[in-house]
Amino acid sequence: MKSRAAVAFKPGEPLSIVEIDVEEPKAKEVLVKMLYTSVCHTDAYTLSGDDPEGVFPAVLGHEGGGVVISVGDGVTSVKPGDHVIPLYTPECGECKFCLSGKTNLCSAIRETQGKGLMPDGTTRFSYNGEPIHHYMGTSTFSEYTVVSEISLVKVEQDVPLDKVCLFGCGVTTGIGAVHNTAKVEAGAVAAVFGLGAIGLAVVQGLVQAKASRIIVVDLNEDKFELAKKMGATDFINPSKFDKPIQEVIVEMTDGGVDYSFECIGNVEVMRSALESCHKGWGESIIIGVAAGGKEIQTRPFQLVTGRVWKGSAFGGVKGRTELPGMVEDFMNGKIDLDSFITHQLDSKDINEAFNLLSKGESIRTILTYGE
Amino acid sequence: MKSRAAVAFKPGEPLSIVEIDVEEPKAKEVLVKMLYTSVCHTDAYTLSGDDPEGVFPAVLGHEGGGVVISVGDGVTSVKPGDHVIPLYTPECGECKFCLSGKTNLCSAIRETQGKGLMPDGTTRFSYNGEPIHHYMGTSTFSEYTVVSEISLVKVEQDVPLDKVCLFGCGVTTGIGAVHNTAKVEAGAVAAVFGLGAIGLAVVQGLVQAKASRIIVVDLNEDKFELAKKMGATDFINPSKFDKPIQEVIVEMTDGGVDYSFECIGNVEVMRSALESCHKGWGESIIIGVAAGGKEIQTRPFQLVTGRVWKGSAFGGVKGRTELPGMVEDFMNGKIDLDSFITHQLDSKDINEAFNLLSKGESIRTILTYGE
Repeated sequence: MKSRAAVAFKPGEPLSIVEIDVEEPKAKEVLVKMLYTSVCHTDAYTLSGDDPEGVFPAVLGHEGGGVVISVGDGVTSVKPGDHVIPLYTPECGECKFCLSGKTNLCSAIRETQGKGLMPDGTTRFSYNGEPIHHYMGTSTFSEYTVVSEISLVKVEQDVPLDKVCLFGCGVTTGIGAVHNTAKVEAGAVAAVFGLGAIGLAVVQGLVQAKASRIIVVDLNEDKFELAKKMGATDFINPSKFDKPIQEVIVEMTDGGVDYSFECIGNVEVMRSALESCHKGWGESIIIGVAAGGKEIQTRPFQLVTGRVWKGSAFGGVKGRTELPGMVEDFMNGKIDLDSFITHQLDSKDINEAFNLLSKGESIRTILTYGE
Repeated sequence: MKSRAAVAFKPGEPLSIVEIDVEEPKAKEVLVKMLYTSVCHTDAYTLSGDDPEGVFPAVLGHEGGGVVISVGDGVTSVKPGDHVIPLYTPECGECKFCLSGKTNLCSAIRETQGKGLMPDGTTRFSYNGEPIHHYMGTSTFSEYTVVSEISLVKVEQDVPLDKVCLFGCGVTTGIGAVHNTAKVEAGAVAAVFGLGAIGLAVVQGLVQAKASRIIVVDLNEDKFELAKKMGATDFINPSKFDKPIQEVIVEMTDGGVDYSFECIGNVEVMRSALESCHKGWGESIIIGVAAGGKEIQTRPFQLVTGRVWKGSAFGGVKGRTELPGMVEDFMNGKIDLDSFITHQLDSKDINEAFNLLSKGESIRTILTYGE
């Protein structure tokens, strides 16, 4: 079938709004009509060409919400008409990772997903007869997309997809990192580096966890107002200090924070976040995705004296098992998604959404495909 | 009083066997007659002059066992005649760290201990009227030493001090890192880098924890026999492979180990240990002490995909609370100390003990002060 799509033909160039061909879903696959999608920094990173694993041409996009149109053989968990959120971290429930009870990093389709292909090694997208790659197993920048059954979580019909599409990445990642990865306890002191969607979601997770102090760090002070509204208690602009920001934080917290979260993807900030932690027990969680080839560095003494360095992908959240609970939290007013949504545009204006994000003018822009 | 001691007058030179003056213990201090001491790589590191925090002249030594001779004002937990093990990681039970329930890194006397001084900022040692520094709060290379009350754990009279003196550092560090820091569970697959006293103690801890596979890594294959006797199951000499040892380990374990332990103090090996861990859940524990200025390094992707980087000091063991249980385990045959003891010498031959250690010819040499 024909589908409007924003295709990344070449790295570093704007997306092209074209009509592509989308094949029917094969076994264990699902055809989804996207209703909404958002744009995340990871899409921008891959589009820039800096992502060493980026494949072109491709349909990018991994934060979306839509409705099931048709299903391939053997699909049992969703049916046409179901509302769904695509998951770039799938959950097969059967692989070594899913069965470990220790991680959300399902390995079932990892290899082909990383190559921009469906599990059978081919693509369902083409343009003028030439194959177009998938992206993160989701490709939400096409009105019609094909994803694996295990890459979908179903949501109830009364749930507003134009909000919960944000659970496809940033919000889940931030909130999940607080609860699943760091396991923050009531009364804890925490620092959040970077106030994009993930950083703000971490703030929200920390409020849920009843952290006693939520220190946010960003070079752009314009972001502090929203962070404050969401529950941050202390606001630091590193450019205002003439010493390393970890020293500032250690001083203002009598030894350091219990938990820190790096939500930028900058390896220097990752070091600052670790070294802001309290000796003996402070844990630092890397959430941001660093550029290819970049490495983190610190003195091992930092770890030997009790700090812990961790990371989190998709907030450690198992999408099909845990996302329904987060959607319920949103429906019950326990998670605020509205504050993340700064702009709304038609899907044809997707390049403008990338611009807003790169200029730091938006947290999230919701793009609408229309009916 | 007069005391035979091995004094480190200058970095890089052998210890000098001399008679020093030892003052009476002040308030909250205890005078201990050492009966036995051992030599650890940390003593050798400080003696070499490479330790940026090393202070000279000093009485080194931190693995010992002795008997209380006299106590200063306010000392209540030990009395003359008690058998004790000095603790370089004290336990006051009252500081922020002791009360946290999260760490063994008591801060009560940390600042002065790091400077080679008693808590009042002075020393109890002198030679020809010139002050001699303390070391790690223990200074077991003097027949008579003064330590803080909180730096002593009492052991029963029937416990052989010539064995349990090893609980003063290496053995406790290794076994503690397995149980307290890594919390290794039955069935786990683990790798141990470096087969000195700490590495062998880690092997012993892993056997206690019922690890299913214990992979040991060392360049010196002579060490494999003892490791095997203590319970290691797989033996790797990295020089026999033409690829990074982490790749070898990931291949032989179908994805990596659940836990790895760095017991050398080499930042490159620390990286290998981390990258030997299984994606999603593998935890690497740094135990070795790296040279000053050295830094660990890896791609943040290693952590974002679920590996955890930790460290351990004195095995996370609270000496006064937990060491009595370990001594009991030894008395009940649950901890083997004899295998660590490769040599026994008179205390005047301490420089020979350093030689044996540096040449890799000893695990531990027990030095005897005599009655």
